[in-house]
Amino acid sequence: MSRTAEPAVLLDLDGTLVDSVYHHVFCWQQAFAAAGHEVSAHRIHLGIGMGSERLVPFVLGRGPDDLDDLVADHKRRFLDVAGTLRPTTGAPELLTDLEDRGVPFMIATSAGSEERHALLDVLGRSDVPTTDSSQVERSKPAPDLLVSAAEELGVEASAVTYVGDSPWDAEAATRLGMRAIGVLTGGFPSAVLREAGAFTVAGSPRDLIGRL
Amino acid sequence: MSRTAEPAVLLDLDGTLVDSVYHHVFCWQQAFAAAGHEVSAHRIHLGIGMGSERLVPFVLGRGPDDLDDLVADHKRRFLDVAGTLRPTTGAPELLTDLEDRGVPFMIATSAGSEERHALLDVLGRSDVPTTDSSQVERSKPAPDLLVSAAEELGVEASAVTYVGDSPWDAEAATRLGMRAIGVLTGGFPSAVLREAGAFTVAGSPRDLIGRL
Repeated sequence: MSRTAEPAVLLDLDGTLVDSVYHHVFCWQQAFAAAGHEVSAHRIHLGIGMGSERLVPFVLGRGPDDLDDLVADHKRRFLDVAGTLRPTTGAPELLTDLEDRGVPFMIATSAGSEERHALLDVLGRSDVPTTDSSQVERSKPAPDLLVSAAEELGVEASAVTYVGDSPWDAEAATRLGMRAIGVLTGGFPSAVLREAGAFTVAGSPRDLIGRL
Repeated sequence: MSRTAEPAVLLDLDGTLVDSVYHHVFCWQQAFAAAGHEVSAHRIHLGIGMGSERLVPFVLGRGPDDLDDLVADHKRRFLDVAGTLRPTTGAPELLTDLEDRGVPFMIATSAGSEERHALLDVLGRSDVPTTDSSQVERSKPAPDLLVSAAEELGVEASAVTYVGDSPWDAEAATRLGMRAIGVLTGGFPSAVLREAGAFTVAGSPRDLIGRL
């Protein structure tokens, strides 16, 4: 496939378009506790934005024997509460704005297939093109997901702006020479996002309408 | 009561001794959503540490008609999940350390009476002296709670070190001329706690054992 240098946008989903970070922290903490692992909620928060199989060893400080069980238990708990999720401020409108202005874009998420469907349901946009972690070998902060998404869009990394709420998003994007924009909707402070490589930080997707 | 200048310690409870901040965010978000208020989880997080009757207008940007219902619904949801709470790292050991070393201390919390009992149960320490918000007119960041606690301990404000996880804790303490120490267990970054007045920031209560 030939690549163009036309500007394109990649969007993180969890915490960026859907207000799900605190749901994830809560569900992870329950899953860890149920498995007998005592971990701090704020430590879990610091790992949100990584894929599950990377978050678990990050939080525990080691790769546990029960990784698969933990990931499955978190997923079950998250899907149980997914009905209470809401979009982040301006997220549906930002998607419409990109479409109206003809900006090529795609959602690039570490979420597994079932979680992704639940999150897209929250946005009422199951039609939006999405690359998820089941299609790549390593999740964020490894750049595989973003490489795969840029390939699907047929654009060069240098033409891509990636919008995400976590430092792992900014780190993954800047590793590839993409432009990273942070949003505060995941509860990560502006300074943390900038330090991870975000060149600017917006309050929410609403602040990006007409500007990507 | 005569006041002494003997060093004394006041401890916040929610988020500082019990790992409850993310539980609170989750329950508040559910309560707001059930009442038809669309608010961001990270905005709620920024209000955690205030008393409920201050958090609600802070989050909504106005004082709602249904304040009492919101506060009651959050409380119900929080008590429902309180069985899954855990102490923060080193919290029970810090209390024992203060007792062993004869340091006068008291827990000063914005939590209402029922929540306070649930939180003390998590610590296994319903015997620890506690001042709660039902005993004062205004909650943090108003300093009433800390004034009341220092009076009960019979110490001057200038002799008090207050340990808390939120910027509201640090702000309330420094307004009174108390020394504020931050802990990271509430998910507030070190820079935020220092800016609010904390003179130092510890990772968790464990890091303060033998040092207060």
